[in-house]
Amino acid sequence: MNKFRLLVCLLSIIFSLDVYTQSDAEILKKIYKTSLTNGKSYDWLNHLSNQIGGRLSGSLNAEKAVNYTKEELDKLGLDKVWLQPVMVPKWIRGFKEHAFIESEKGKKTTVNICALGGSVATAALGLKANVVEVKNFEDLETLGKNNIEGKIVFYNRPMQVDLINTFEAYGGCVNQRYKGAVEAVKYGAAGVIVRSMNLRLDDFPHTGSMTYGDLPVKDRIPSAAISTNDAELLSTMLKLDKSIKFYFKQSCKQLKDVLSYNVIGQITGSEFPNEYMIVGGHLDSWDLGDGSHDDGAGVVQSMDVLRLLKESEITPKRSIRVVLFMNEENGLRGGKKYAEEAKKKGENHVFALESDAGGFTPRGFSFDCNDASFNQVLSWQPLFKPYLIHYFEKGGSGADVGPLKTETNVLAGLRPDSQRYFDHHHASNDTFDAVNKRELELGAATMTALVYLFDKYGVNPIVNETQIKK
Amino acid sequence: MNKFRLLVCLLSIIFSLDVYTQSDAEILKKIYKTSLTNGKSYDWLNHLSNQIGGRLSGSLNAEKAVNYTKEELDKLGLDKVWLQPVMVPKWIRGFKEHAFIESEKGKKTTVNICALGGSVATAALGLKANVVEVKNFEDLETLGKNNIEGKIVFYNRPMQVDLINTFEAYGGCVNQRYKGAVEAVKYGAAGVIVRSMNLRLDDFPHTGSMTYGDLPVKDRIPSAAISTNDAELLSTMLKLDKSIKFYFKQSCKQLKDVLSYNVIGQITGSEFPNEYMIVGGHLDSWDLGDGSHDDGAGVVQSMDVLRLLKESEITPKRSIRVVLFMNEENGLRGGKKYAEEAKKKGENHVFALESDAGGFTPRGFSFDCNDASFNQVLSWQPLFKPYLIHYFEKGGSGADVGPLKTETNVLAGLRPDSQRYFDHHHASNDTFDAVNKRELELGAATMTALVYLFDKYGVNPIVNETQIKK
Repeated sequence: MNKFRLLVCLLSIIFSLDVYTQSDAEILKKIYKTSLTNGKSYDWLNHLSNQIGGRLSGSLNAEKAVNYTKEELDKLGLDKVWLQPVMVPKWIRGFKEHAFIESEKGKKTTVNICALGGSVATAALGLKANVVEVKNFEDLETLGKNNIEGKIVFYNRPMQVDLINTFEAYGGCVNQRYKGAVEAVKYGAAGVIVRSMNLRLDDFPHTGSMTYGDLPVKDRIPSAAISTNDAELLSTMLKLDKSIKFYFKQSCKQLKDVLSYNVIGQITGSEFPNEYMIVGGHLDSWDLGDGSHDDGAGVVQSMDVLRLLKESEITPKRSIRVVLFMNEENGLRGGKKYAEEAKKKGENHVFALESDAGGFTPRGFSFDCNDASFNQVLSWQPLFKPYLIHYFEKGGSGADVGPLKTETNVLAGLRPDSQRYFDHHHASNDTFDAVNKRELELGAATMTALVYLFDKYGVNPIVNETQIKK
Repeated sequence: MNKFRLLVCLLSIIFSLDVYTQSDAEILKKIYKTSLTNGKSYDWLNHLSNQIGGRLSGSLNAEKAVNYTKEELDKLGLDKVWLQPVMVPKWIRGFKEHAFIESEKGKKTTVNICALGGSVATAALGLKANVVEVKNFEDLETLGKNNIEGKIVFYNRPMQVDLINTFEAYGGCVNQRYKGAVEAVKYGAAGVIVRSMNLRLDDFPHTGSMTYGDLPVKDRIPSAAISTNDAELLSTMLKLDKSIKFYFKQSCKQLKDVLSYNVIGQITGSEFPNEYMIVGGHLDSWDLGDGSHDDGAGVVQSMDVLRLLKESEITPKRSIRVVLFMNEENGLRGGKKYAEEAKKKGENHVFALESDAGGFTPRGFSFDCNDASFNQVLSWQPLFKPYLIHYFEKGGSGADVGPLKTETNVLAGLRPDSQRYFDHHHASNDTFDAVNKRELELGAATMTALVYLFDKYGVNPIVNETQIKK
C-alpha cells in the first residue's frame, strides 16, 4: 500500500468511526431526553401502585393489573398486543398475622410478623412453643432432634453488610427463608420464623417465597418472617432466658391454580421480523406493599422502552416485544410459559432484557452471553458514559428471561443502584413514594438505549476491532 | 540489555505492581468494611439532625452543633482538636411566612412560601401587588419599567430536567434566586418571588441565599420562594387572568454579625507533619429542615474519615485535618477564614476534599488539580472499581475548600448520585429519614480511601508510567 492509499484508508476509518459514534450518541441523547421530559413510566407506576396496589398471583388486583397494562399498551399503537394465558398458583394470606414473645411470668411483647408466601396456617388458636435460634442448617444438625423437636426454629443469620452489591448479601441469606421449613421439619420443629431479608434495622417484616419440597401436606409447618428489630430483640431475650415462648397465628392458605396472563406487546421488525428482542418485568408482586420497586418499576420501564423507541422515531429492524410476566414471585409460571411457547413456535429470541432490581438510579447491566457479544457491549461503553452508566459485567440476567437462554443469544439484567432495595423488598414499605421519578426514567432510557444498540448492530456479529474499547 | 536482564526487569515491574495493588486493595477493603460494619457517621448524623436540627449561622443550634462536634472529635483521640473563631452573619426568619393568590373577586388560594436567606421583611401588613412572570433577566429588560413598576416579579424558569447532573440544572437556574431582587429593583419591582430550585413538582418551598449587592437598605425589596406546584399554579392562573394579585408577609431580618467557629481536628503526620490534607463539610445549614443532606452528611462523613483511618490502623505521613466549616450557606465566612489563617501561618495545604452534595451513594470525585495529579488519580481507578466508584473528572471541588487553591495542590469534591438531591435541598424535607445509612457510610469510606492514597503517594509527584491506567 502506498502512502496515499494508506492516508485515504486511515481517513475513511476515522470518518466512519466519527459518523458511527456521532449518530448513536445523538440517538441516545434523544432517548434520554424523551424519557426525562416526556416519560410515561412514572404515571403508569402511579396507577399500578396507587389505583391497583399489591398484585399477588391469582388475586383480583393481579387481574386488574393485566387489564390495565393491556389497555395502556393498546394505546401505544404497537403492531400487536395480546394476553398469553398461564395457570398460576393462588396463595392467600388470610387475616393479618399476630405474634408475641411470652416470658415465663406471662409478659407479652408484640412482634411484627408476616407469613411467608406458600406457608400453611397455624392451628386456629395459633402456635406457641419454645424457640431455638440458629444461624444456618449446620446449626440444626449440631443441635439435633433432641433440642429442636416441638420447638419453633428461629433463623437469624443477618445479611452481610460489607458486601457492596446487596443482592449478593441477599443470596447469602435467602436459603433460611426458602428452605428453612423443609430443613427444620427433619428435626421435628413445630414452626419456623426467620429474620427478614433486610440490611436495615426496622420494624417491617419482609415476606417472600418458601418451599416445602415434596413434604406431605400433613407434615408442613407454618413459616413466617419477623422484622429485623424484632429478630434482634428475640435474640437478646433468648440469651437472657431460654425458656421464653413465641406465639404466632396466621391463616394463610394455598388454593387451586387459577388462570392468569402474561401481557405482551410487539413492534414488528422492519428487516428481521422473525428475530425477537424482549424487554420485561413481572406484573405480579407480593401483597404487603404496592409492589412499586418489585416490580412495578420493571413493568413500567419495559412498557416505556417500546414507547420511547417510537417517540424517538427509531424503526427497529428486529421485532421488539415487551413482556409483562405473571407469577415471578411464587412460581415463575409466566417466565416458563413464555419460553415454552416461544420454543413451540420456533421463535428465535436473540436478546432478552429484564428489569427486576428496583426503580433506582441505573448503573448498568449484567450479561449472560458469549464473549463476542460481551465485547460488542464493551465497545458501546463510551456511548453510555454521559449518562453515568458504567457497570457492564458478565453475570446473571433475570429469573423471568432465564428460560430463554440459548448458546448464542444475549440475556441481560438492568442493574440499578442496590443500596436501598432491601429496605423495601417484599415489605409493606415497597410503595410508590419510595420511587424517584428521575431515577425510574433514567432506568427506562438506559434499557431503551441498549435495545436500540443491539437492534442496530445485531447480536453475536463478527466484532469489528474498531468498535471495541480496550 | 540482554534477554535475561530484560526478563528480570519485567518480572520486577510486574512484582512491584502486584504488591502495590494488592496492598492498597487490601487497605481499601478494610476501610469500606469498617465503615459499613462499624461506621459512626449515621449515629452522629442522627444526633445532629434529630437532637439539634437546622443550624443557621449565628443561631443557638449552630452553637450546639459546634459544641457537639467538638466533643465528639475530642473522644476520637486525635492529636489536636480546636475551634477557630470566625464572625458570621446572623439572619433570622421571624414568624412563618404567609402567602396567597387573590382573584379579582377576592377568592384567596394559599401558597407554600418561604423567605429567601438574606431577604428583608415585607411591611408589617404584608405586600400585595399584581404579578409579572418572567423566565430570566432579559425578560425584565424586554418588559421594561412600565410593565414592572410596583409589581411583584415572579421568576419561573424551571430546572432543566434532561440534564443528567442535577447540579448543572441548578447552576442554570440559581441566578433567579440569588440576583433576582437586585435585578428586579432596577425596574421598580415591589417584591420578588421565585420558583423553588427543585426538579420535582411538590409543595415544599426551598430557601437559599440571595444578594442585594450594594443596594441601599431603603431600596431593598422582599424576596421569597414558592413551591414548584404553586409556581405552576400561579403561572396557569396568570395565563387566565393577568389581574390576579399575590400577597405575602414575612418578618425576616438581618442582625449584626456574631462570633462563631470552624471546628477542626487533626492527626499529625508521621513523616511530613507540615503538609496538610483536609476533609470537610459545612456545619451550618438552612433552618427549614434539619440539614441532614446539606450538609450534615458531609460533616459526619468528614469526621469519620479521621476515625476510619485510625480504625484501619493507617498512620498518615501527612497531617490530616477534618474541618467543619461555619457559614457556607450565607456568607462562606468559615471557608474564607480557614484559608486566610492557613496563609497567615504558611501552612502548606497539599490536598483538600469537600463533601457537600448530599449523603447519597457515592459515584466518585471531581478534581481541581494539574494533569500530573489527575493522571495519578486515574491510575487508582481499578482500586475503586469493587466499590462501584467510577466517576473521576476534572471540575469544581467545593465552596469551602475553594479558597485554598494553589497551582500545585489538589482540591476535590465527593460526587454522590445527584438525582434526589434537589428534592430536599434547602427545604423542610431535608431530614434524617431521607438519608440511607449504607449510602452515607459508602461515602465516608470513599473519601477515606482517596485520602489514604494521596497521603501514601503524595500530591503532584513525578508520575510513574506503570501507575497510569490509560
